[in-house]
Amino acid sequence: MDKKIIRAALLGFGTVGTGVYKVLQKQKEDMIPKLGSQIEIKKILVRNLEKAAAKVEDPAVLTNNWDEIVNDPEIDIVIELIGGIEPARSYILAALNAGKHVVTANKDLIAVYGKELLDAAEVHHVDFLFEAAVAGGIPIIRPLKECLAGNHMAEVMGIVNGTTNFILTKMTQDGMEFKDALALATELGYAEADPTADIEGLDAGRKVAILASVAFNSRVVFDDVYIEGITKITAKDIKYAKEMGCDIKLLGVAKNTEEGIEAYVCPMLIPSSHPLASVNDSYNAVFVNGDAVENAMFYGRGAGELPTASAVVGDLFDIARNIKANCCARIGCTCYKELPVKKMADTYSRYFMRLIVEDRCGVLAEMTAVFAKYGVSVAQIIQRAARAEESAEVVVITAKVREGDFRTAMEDLSGRSSVRKVSSMLRVYGE
Amino acid sequence: MDKKIIRAALLGFGTVGTGVYKVLQKQKEDMIPKLGSQIEIKKILVRNLEKAAAKVEDPAVLTNNWDEIVNDPEIDIVIELIGGIEPARSYILAALNAGKHVVTANKDLIAVYGKELLDAAEVHHVDFLFEAAVAGGIPIIRPLKECLAGNHMAEVMGIVNGTTNFILTKMTQDGMEFKDALALATELGYAEADPTADIEGLDAGRKVAILASVAFNSRVVFDDVYIEGITKITAKDIKYAKEMGCDIKLLGVAKNTEEGIEAYVCPMLIPSSHPLASVNDSYNAVFVNGDAVENAMFYGRGAGELPTASAVVGDLFDIARNIKANCCARIGCTCYKELPVKKMADTYSRYFMRLIVEDRCGVLAEMTAVFAKYGVSVAQIIQRAARAEESAEVVVITAKVREGDFRTAMEDLSGRSSVRKVSSMLRVYGE
Repeated sequence: MDKKIIRAALLGFGTVGTGVYKVLQKQKEDMIPKLGSQIEIKKILVRNLEKAAAKVEDPAVLTNNWDEIVNDPEIDIVIELIGGIEPARSYILAALNAGKHVVTANKDLIAVYGKELLDAAEVHHVDFLFEAAVAGGIPIIRPLKECLAGNHMAEVMGIVNGTTNFILTKMTQDGMEFKDALALATELGYAEADPTADIEGLDAGRKVAILASVAFNSRVVFDDVYIEGITKITAKDIKYAKEMGCDIKLLGVAKNTEEGIEAYVCPMLIPSSHPLASVNDSYNAVFVNGDAVENAMFYGRGAGELPTASAVVGDLFDIARNIKANCCARIGCTCYKELPVKKMADTYSRYFMRLIVEDRCGVLAEMTAVFAKYGVSVAQIIQRAARAEESAEVVVITAKVREGDFRTAMEDLSGRSSVRKVSSMLRVYGE
Repeated sequence: MDKKIIRAALLGFGTVGTGVYKVLQKQKEDMIPKLGSQIEIKKILVRNLEKAAAKVEDPAVLTNNWDEIVNDPEIDIVIELIGGIEPARSYILAALNAGKHVVTANKDLIAVYGKELLDAAEVHHVDFLFEAAVAGGIPIIRPLKECLAGNHMAEVMGIVNGTTNFILTKMTQDGMEFKDALALATELGYAEADPTADIEGLDAGRKVAILASVAFNSRVVFDDVYIEGITKITAKDIKYAKEMGCDIKLLGVAKNTEEGIEAYVCPMLIPSSHPLASVNDSYNAVFVNGDAVENAMFYGRGAGELPTASAVVGDLFDIARNIKANCCARIGCTCYKELPVKKMADTYSRYFMRLIVEDRCGVLAEMTAVFAKYGVSVAQIIQRAARAEESAEVVVITAKVREGDFRTAMEDLSGRSSVRKVSSMLRVYGE
């Protein structure tokens, strides 16, 4: 089909929507030589017509009526940037059913309804692309589906939430406590008014579900991902981690093991020499390990108006090229396996823990005896006098152990009178 | 075309060819569900049939006769891994003219004859892909052509030669001198028997030409790239750089400025806080800056059997998908602009230099007067007593200055009796 003008509709005109509009304007003169066609935004679905009018050249593109978009046969592509589950899901399904291609940055939706949406796209032979849903402007979905398709991926992991990475960076570099760093993040616009989805790890969890599905060719949904946030991390944890040669990062991890997929998000100690340890501020980075490529990392802006728009427009251009070459739906769902997802209790990790114990002879012996009972080996230990009288602070890093066994050991330990408090318990990334 | 078996031929069966063969074997069971078709290696062109026989299941795939490949209508794809200009160029052109798709890792060829080859592919409506030609396993060509296509790229630069990065890492971390680090690289197999192309920066220069062409949509060839190698770098330069908060890396840099494209390869000081400064050993990384994505970086193995094969197989899979969707040559040459390339003398940079000067009153004043005459401002200066009697070592970092003016200043300076020796002169990356 040699179509010179391809018409698209934007659903939502917030930060990313505005970014997409701007980027398409900047690319106006490049589209014909680059793609062979011109992409035009024909309609923008907004809630408040008046408020949006200031942001467009011609207010006639604005509408608050979805039917005007879905029923317009001239509109080839719908760009969904409303976010959340409804009405985004219904709109996308209706668009796909109407034979329109869809580009979205909606991680909440894909992490739960990815299969449904990709199936609908396949039935109607249209494209459903979502590069912007993971790690903002960083190319990762297409590299995994195409450039790295010759690999069996063993692992895909990384820093996929900019808000929490900013907070942890401030806690590490300036010794701030969590609540002060969060306040600063809010002040600077890195954290939303309700920061729950970020600081509790939910946002990162959605991205891990999507990354794991694409990397391992097997569907992983949000509910499969074990999630812990960063609200309990203290400046003291970070200080001890540094003493042990590590930084603390909120990591999203997906591993493809023989017994099944592991998928989790939690604050972890990571050796300071690892490339991810120096990914700071609101930057994101995704690290992959495959049987051919070995280690590779993709680094950049995980959010923001123009970086996220860069990913959305990349998808739009891909569809324009597909329309021109008459090969839409060239690559659809790549989940052709059905691998089990492991329970968190069945994963293996090293653990870092900080305890306040009674400061008397025999306490360390008791602790290590409990560990031994459950097969937990101690790899590193630091003991210091704590502030409270007759108590001592003990920091331990264990050898690799099954999470379930470690938890049982910790329950046993915390029930004992010699253990006054378990202050922290964090996983340690790596062998 | 619903083709269940796609036949390919390998030209060359060295490190990368063997890697491609292995990776395709590992992907045997995945190709049908992933691509809808099976890629089979029908022929492998080798020089020595006997030597190669040990590496394949069925020696009947081996041939030393190119005609058997180019004249075989069953062979859809030719994978050129011979390297160098001839016979690679003639083989590729013949394959394209015969309507076969071509995948290559041949940077020497593309950096000089890229346009000719891409034009031939376009005429015959076939794919010509070369992801493996730059930075081995790291996805960068396809991300630039597709994922980041919505950007006007301002810069693409990075560490694109693993051998020199290994050498500089050893010089930095262990204080080795260049020739000892090179000897170690040779011993460990990171450097070839004739290391000229690596240590003189030629290999990196080819990659810069290709990266600039793809990133800026305008052809840059090898001859356009200004090149300096790392043979004159000393452990002392690295020590002084560290004192000034920098590391020394062999950087390939391409910038898209209003006056034209800058393209050069040279050892440069880079702030230790820059993500590229911690890319060590034989790892590569490519850093890009675009008007939408802002900063992004791609990191991984720039060479090696399986990492490079990962990129080749990614291209092969892309072609298999194009064949299935009947959209070959979907993306061809993306150089639709004709931007000028600047002379090195017209580029701007900060400079680091190390001089041995007479240790007497007035010498610094004379130096700075010469600098001032040519518009060179001094940003940082260190002066130490040198070993030779009555001489002092001065290390200077300048503010940004036009290269031509800086060179004139240096000529003036080195002609003066007070300057005994210009030990080093290096550019400094960044503003």
